[in-house]
Amino acid sequence: MTQIDTARKGRISAEMRAIARKESVEPEFIRKGVEKGSIVIPKNRKRRLKKPCGIGAGLTTKINANIGTSKDSSDIRHELKKMAAAISLGADAIMDLSTGKGISRTRRSILSKCDVPLGTVPLYEITIGQDAKRKEIPDITVDEMFAVLEEQAEDGVDFFTIHAGVIQRAVDTLRENPRILDIVSRGGAFLAQWMTKNRRENPFYEYFDRVLKIAKEFDITLSLGDGLRPGSIKDATDAPQILELMALGELRKKAMRQGVQVMIEGPGHVPINQIETNVALEKAICGGAPFYVLGPLVTDVAPGYDHITAAIGGAIAATAGADFLCYVTPAEHLRLPTIEDVREGVIATKIAAHAADVAKDIKGAIDWDVKISKARLARNWNEQFRLAIDSSKPKSYRSSSQPGLTDVCTMCGEFCSMKIAQDCLRKR
Amino acid sequence: MTQIDTARKGRISAEMRAIARKESVEPEFIRKGVEKGSIVIPKNRKRRLKKPCGIGAGLTTKINANIGTSKDSSDIRHELKKMAAAISLGADAIMDLSTGKGISRTRRSILSKCDVPLGTVPLYEITIGQDAKRKEIPDITVDEMFAVLEEQAEDGVDFFTIHAGVIQRAVDTLRENPRILDIVSRGGAFLAQWMTKNRRENPFYEYFDRVLKIAKEFDITLSLGDGLRPGSIKDATDAPQILELMALGELRKKAMRQGVQVMIEGPGHVPINQIETNVALEKAICGGAPFYVLGPLVTDVAPGYDHITAAIGGAIAATAGADFLCYVTPAEHLRLPTIEDVREGVIATKIAAHAADVAKDIKGAIDWDVKISKARLARNWNEQFRLAIDSSKPKSYRSSSQPGLTDVCTMCGEFCSMKIAQDCLRKR
Repeated sequence: MTQIDTARKGRISAEMRAIARKESVEPEFIRKGVEKGSIVIPKNRKRRLKKPCGIGAGLTTKINANIGTSKDSSDIRHELKKMAAAISLGADAIMDLSTGKGISRTRRSILSKCDVPLGTVPLYEITIGQDAKRKEIPDITVDEMFAVLEEQAEDGVDFFTIHAGVIQRAVDTLRENPRILDIVSRGGAFLAQWMTKNRRENPFYEYFDRVLKIAKEFDITLSLGDGLRPGSIKDATDAPQILELMALGELRKKAMRQGVQVMIEGPGHVPINQIETNVALEKAICGGAPFYVLGPLVTDVAPGYDHITAAIGGAIAATAGADFLCYVTPAEHLRLPTIEDVREGVIATKIAAHAADVAKDIKGAIDWDVKISKARLARNWNEQFRLAIDSSKPKSYRSSSQPGLTDVCTMCGEFCSMKIAQDCLRKR
Repeated sequence: MTQIDTARKGRISAEMRAIARKESVEPEFIRKGVEKGSIVIPKNRKRRLKKPCGIGAGLTTKINANIGTSKDSSDIRHELKKMAAAISLGADAIMDLSTGKGISRTRRSILSKCDVPLGTVPLYEITIGQDAKRKEIPDITVDEMFAVLEEQAEDGVDFFTIHAGVIQRAVDTLRENPRILDIVSRGGAFLAQWMTKNRRENPFYEYFDRVLKIAKEFDITLSLGDGLRPGSIKDATDAPQILELMALGELRKKAMRQGVQVMIEGPGHVPINQIETNVALEKAICGGAPFYVLGPLVTDVAPGYDHITAAIGGAIAATAGADFLCYVTPAEHLRLPTIEDVREGVIATKIAAHAADVAKDIKGAIDWDVKISKARLARNWNEQFRLAIDSSKPKSYRSSSQPGLTDVCTMCGEFCSMKIAQDCLRKR
């Protein structure tokens, strides 16, 4: 039985129970969320998953870290190190976006070491695998596509990004309404090319039943991808983007009827004043399905610092109801991320997610802030480091700049406002 | 004549004209803003200021970088380098918060090299100067305080942070309603100590007319400080904070009657869901005066990364109407910032300010994003670097990771979505 089937029978799965405990909610709350599709639990039936994770309404905001090789940089051990760094800093899920040599071998290595849900974009293996056979994208057959989905499902992948909403009508609308950056999603671009050259509908849309059959068999969560997401804030919230979202809403209904879990992917590059609208629209059009956003990046002008532009957008989106934030690293738009980039990306995204959880009054979220503030009052540096989202950087900062007095820092030295205030307000 | 007097006579000063040109608005718009106090132009009458700066409603969001020595780290040349770095990255104003040895000498060095408005917190020199004479804070006389204001005014300081709103009633309320972190402002703590030990009202509140007299004579803009700002998100928007804000609103009216320009300082540590309220409250209570916020930091759990927590809060605050963002560096809560910390702080704050300007539809703001997006489409790397908020980091990222093909990056390599989309959508 899939998680949805279990929930529909009124039963509570082991994963629902574990997630309820972690989130300090009733198991019944998780069951109901899974039943109506406002919560997903990405877990392939074949996987033994140490840390199952619930994503959706009423739960803490989750974060995903992308790893994976590319043609220019293919070292599996390096990717495994990135994964370990991301998980240790609090990533709730990992996506393997490898496009380098030996995609299936890389995936299996990662799966064997990954104790959080693992997602993929099967289209990458579909195109790159055929590329190795010197086959052009438009020549790939529909059966070849589904063979990859089946292989990855068998391997144990927990969630698939499927760009099934890049439908002919949305692509035609884009062709007639050019953007600055027409398509910035690899999946979206591959499909647009296939569809255009073959004059055929998106195969994942046309044969969505085949997608559902595989997903159902392995209880894979579908992450319906946004292949037409904007890649410049000037392009945001336009007709192609909304047409795709509407197609995803329609597909989501079909999936729910089959008992397949679904989340919806969202943009991208979006100005601050359009973020709330984007979240509200997804929730309305897609029946409250969990919203998985990439960023959003609130400006295009900061290459090298897009973990910050994305943290701003992610915090606003999650406060407005987005459930799952895909991290963005400082390397975005520039290169494949290094381990240090991965670390910085996870930390920035975690800040955004936690700040939103506080704003949404998620149970217990602010307790973390209270604890570290108390340690700050006590000038208990070790406790502050222990509680900090990352302890290594603040530790090295402090050790690089030792004050004359031990219970203050070099910002104010002896004129520490907290010390003075304690003295004059509390010790009379 | 002060800027306000000039505006009230219906005249347009040279600074108003220069600012109008820079902001692409009519000079009359600036004049009206100065007249009603929704825009300030911080410039000491004695200063020749190369880059005057308008702060307030309808203008681009401005950013301030704090520099200055501390007892544990007193090197003027180092502070001058920080200032140069901050201005070159786009800081619109500098505050000299020195508390190390030789405060007046440091200030004069900085003033002589600073071509943007320079602010100070005179209370620092008041207390540290007397500390050198082994005088305890409560023993400092009111005349000694005002002597420092006069000296700094003569030196040419453009704006003063004056914590005149830390009134007895607000301090009493704080004493009866403890916070996790009672006072995190040095100015606030100094005054609370002075007031408590002397059982007297805040001297800057009681003798606000003396403050106004000096400000008027030199046309110094008053930045009415928030000495009771929250230092933990759990403490935000409480009675002491709002009582202080109300006192500032009252003082602002007095200042406007005297023709003295005023901005209002705001928190601090504030959860995302309270930021809009804080901005709206300041605008309502203080008659639309420019709002100058520190952060706000949206969570307390990320020491070492508070430039990011502040960028999130600053972007939201500025979108809601805050006019002036004080930068926060990664060193906040840990040490006096290094030059690298200053750079990161300015860049993060500039991202927040620009993202907010786009969201507020400030004239021309999005043009920058459009230009860099077009360079991205063209895979014109040099143009992207030239346009980027900081060019050095993206340049070094790219050179560290050269792709096989020159017109793509190592993230996607030959499978560049933009290339594929151009091919299939635009070249039929």
